[in-house]
Amino acid sequence: MTSTPDYGCAFALWRGEAARWDAYVNHAFVAGLRDGSLPRERFLNYLRQDYVFLIHFSRAWALATAKAGTLEEMTTTSATVHALVHHEMPMHVRLCAEAGIDAATLEATEEAPGNLAYTRYVLEAGYSGDFLDLLAALAPCVLGYGEIGVRLMGAETPYRDWIETYGGEEYQDLCREVGALIDGALARRLGADWPSLPRAAELSHRFATATRLEVGFWEMALAG
Amino acid sequence: MTSTPDYGCAFALWRGEAARWDAYVNHAFVAGLRDGSLPRERFLNYLRQDYVFLIHFSRAWALATAKAGTLEEMTTTSATVHALVHHEMPMHVRLCAEAGIDAATLEATEEAPGNLAYTRYVLEAGYSGDFLDLLAALAPCVLGYGEIGVRLMGAETPYRDWIETYGGEEYQDLCREVGALIDGALARRLGADWPSLPRAAELSHRFATATRLEVGFWEMALAG
Amino acid sequence: MTSTPDYGCAFALWRGEAARWDAYVNHAFVAGLRDGSLPRERFLNYLRQDYVFLIHFSRAWALATAKAGTLEEMTTTSATVHALVHHEMPMHVRLCAEAGIDAATLEATEEAPGNLAYTRYVLEAGYSGDFLDLLAALAPCVLGYGEIGVRLMGAETPYRDWIETYGGEEYQDLCREVGALIDGALARRLGADWPSLPRAAELSHRFATATRLEVGFWEMALAG
Amino acid sequence: MTSTPDYGCAFALWRGEAARWDAYVNHAFVAGLRDGSLPRERFLNYLRQDYVFLIHFSRAWALATAKAGTLEEMTTTSATVHALVHHEMPMHVRLCAEAGIDAATLEATEEAPGNLAYTRYVLEAGYSGDFLDLLAALAPCVLGYGEIGVRLMGAETPYRDWIETYGGEEYQDLCREVGALIDGALARRLGADWPSLPRAAELSHRFATATRLEVGFWEMALAG
Repeated sequence: MTSTPDYGCAFALWRGEAARWDAYVNHAFVAGLRDGSLPRERFLNYLRQDYVFLIHFSRAWALATAKAGTLEEMTTTSATVHALVHHEMPMHVRLCAEAGIDAATLEATEEAPGNLAYTRYVLEAGYSGDFLDLLAALAPCVLGYGEIGVRLMGAETPYRDWIETYGGEEYQDLCREVGALIDGALARRLGADWPSLPRAAELSHRFATATRLEVGFWEMALAG
Repeated sequence: MTSTPDYGCAFALWRGEAARWDAYVNHAFVAGLRDGSLPRERFLNYLRQDYVFLIHFSRAWALATAKAGTLEEMTTTSATVHALVHHEMPMHVRLCAEAGIDAATLEATEEAPGNLAYTRYVLEAGYSGDFLDLLAALAPCVLGYGEIGVRLMGAETPYRDWIETYGGEEYQDLCREVGALIDGALARRLGADWPSLPRAAELSHRFATATRLEVGFWEMALAG
Repeated sequence: MTSTPDYGCAFALWRGEAARWDAYVNHAFVAGLRDGSLPRERFLNYLRQDYVFLIHFSRAWALATAKAGTLEEMTTTSATVHALVHHEMPMHVRLCAEAGIDAATLEATEEAPGNLAYTRYVLEAGYSGDFLDLLAALAPCVLGYGEIGVRLMGAETPYRDWIETYGGEEYQDLCREVGALIDGALARRLGADWPSLPRAAELSHRFATATRLEVGFWEMALAG
Repeated sequence: MTSTPDYGCAFALWRGEAARWDAYVNHAFVAGLRDGSLPRERFLNYLRQDYVFLIHFSRAWALATAKAGTLEEMTTTSATVHALVHHEMPMHVRLCAEAGIDAATLEATEEAPGNLAYTRYVLEAGYSGDFLDLLAALAPCVLGYGEIGVRLMGAETPYRDWIETYGGEEYQDLCREVGALIDGALARRLGADWPSLPRAAELSHRFATATRLEVGFWEMALAG
């Protein structure tokens, strides 16, 4: 039996309220990563779409810096952008290259509707809402991958590299940092009792919608 | 044989370049509206999702006013918002009420992923791009419904009311006005030879992506 | 002795906390409107800048529609945009024409820094923050003019027309509506006890900054 | 006689068209930095306002990453944000500390209207326009400081440190990089003949307005 990782209060709350959380973190795609039954071709399809996803996800984190309220919030979010653009994306390009997908093919990937739905939802939440709306929409991806990574650690599977990226200490530290960023941002704006405010339902709904779209992303990767 | 309605230069160009345009305007859903074979339940499902769609679509037109470059652009776009919010949406509420869907049920509609994908794509195009990006993303809905309306006029079908709304003179005037708004906005910013600029490919891509998402919207309505 | 007009709870609170509120509503420019000592040339200078101001102010109200959370919020804000763009601005053009400033001269007005500072502050508050940030930044202009109008009603001055526009019942109704919009938006998101939240200080700061910039606008009009 | 530094084509063009460029780079504040006649107290006042300025300027560069069109544009802009937030701002805090302004005092700086006008203009240009509008509004600060730095290098003055920061090779490299980013972004969207398009006048106007606001920033620092 696995316990839920501790990424802070907001995560625990929103995770419990998101109807599709289990459908996301225990998806057939995830099970296929764990036992190795996921066809290689589906995984490569996922990698290609994930590359396009990461571009828009980095843009969304950059938007968070633009909408931050304190220097500390700017520091954390801009460090995340820097890590995504200057480390994670080049690594992704390398990983794809090793799998026989060259940079040009990667660049030419047509964004699938399920991908487009997710990234534009997150970005629009940020533009139309405020820093909190954006964080609530960003959280399921960052923290859900952390939870999946932790759960799958140690599995004997050809997808071990992928698992260790997200289950490893570096990524787990990032998850705790992002969790703390969210808790801090909430307390700073809405006070300690924020879960009792109507605003809490909006934010939880943002998290739940992004979670629904994560399920859609796995579906797209399996089907595409 | 039906000819294409004349909604201006940009529309003619972008329509010709959008791979999925025919799939959109000649979709099985549209055929079902024409010959009346569309099950009533599918139509009501569509109306419910379209109500949620119209909310976000109105927000996107309001964003166009915020991003307009001239008073005339502000006048046209804000008149569209006003028509959507103060006339089209109340009419939609009435139409649904007649079909037995009360306001509370309508408000409680869960936004389907295909709906969400489309509206957030349009809004994000507007926020991340400029006035032209937003218009290119808004065009397939406004003008495509005009084209469908014109083509279906005169059909003997229980969906005649819907057809006459979009095929009728008032809506056709709006289409010509929006077409002129787009052509004027392009010329004002990019000059008469704008189709030869790299920017033209970006805008055509915006239009083509929104068209893809229109196809997804019909799929969702048929399946939902 | 004049009492403060009742435009709702948030206005009463924020007005009391804005250090420069009196400097704004009792500015030398306002005194000059009341007793007629304001030189005609300064008033015309103000009208020209105010025309540019109204363009950006209308854009900011349109952004409010894009960022609204309910259909009712969309209805109120889009009605304001419509009134500004389709009634107030044409009236402004007429008023200027009567004063000998033709449309071309009006259009060619170079935006003064004090004007630019104010409008961009409001728009940026809306883009970087959420619906509440935007309303808090919009409030001092709408409601402050209402307060000034009420106070100056009945004054024997060549600026009676201007005073009656803002002191008259139609504009006073708008002020009460905007006040109710703000109170409703706050309660809907933050609950009844919102003034006790840290968020309240941010919003009050938005209001106070916009008030400071109103003072700057009068200074610019007197000096320019 | 000093020549103009070569930061690319767009800079050369816009600089030549900005009516207030000389008023900016040869301002009395700049002359006072060169010959040391600038009162220390005015310089410290400038540092305090500049700290607040850098926060919003970093936010604007982060917005550029969110609005970028290619991975390369994301890489350059996010590197700038990282440099600003993780190097330049901590350095600024140290510099202020050495001058006897502690972090708390710095944080408590009330943003002067001239500061507010400038930063909100830049951010709003980015939000309401596109990537190009944002770059045109960002350019006068980045590149103007480069030009001032180069011109003042070698001056015997207590403000040598400041001069060497902007006149030194590292900052000059950044200026050339930003110049190339702008030229590339223009060509990628508008083609090689972009200066002949109506859009060019809009962008030049953005640059000229931001230049006017730089003059206002020096005025504020001298007066404040």
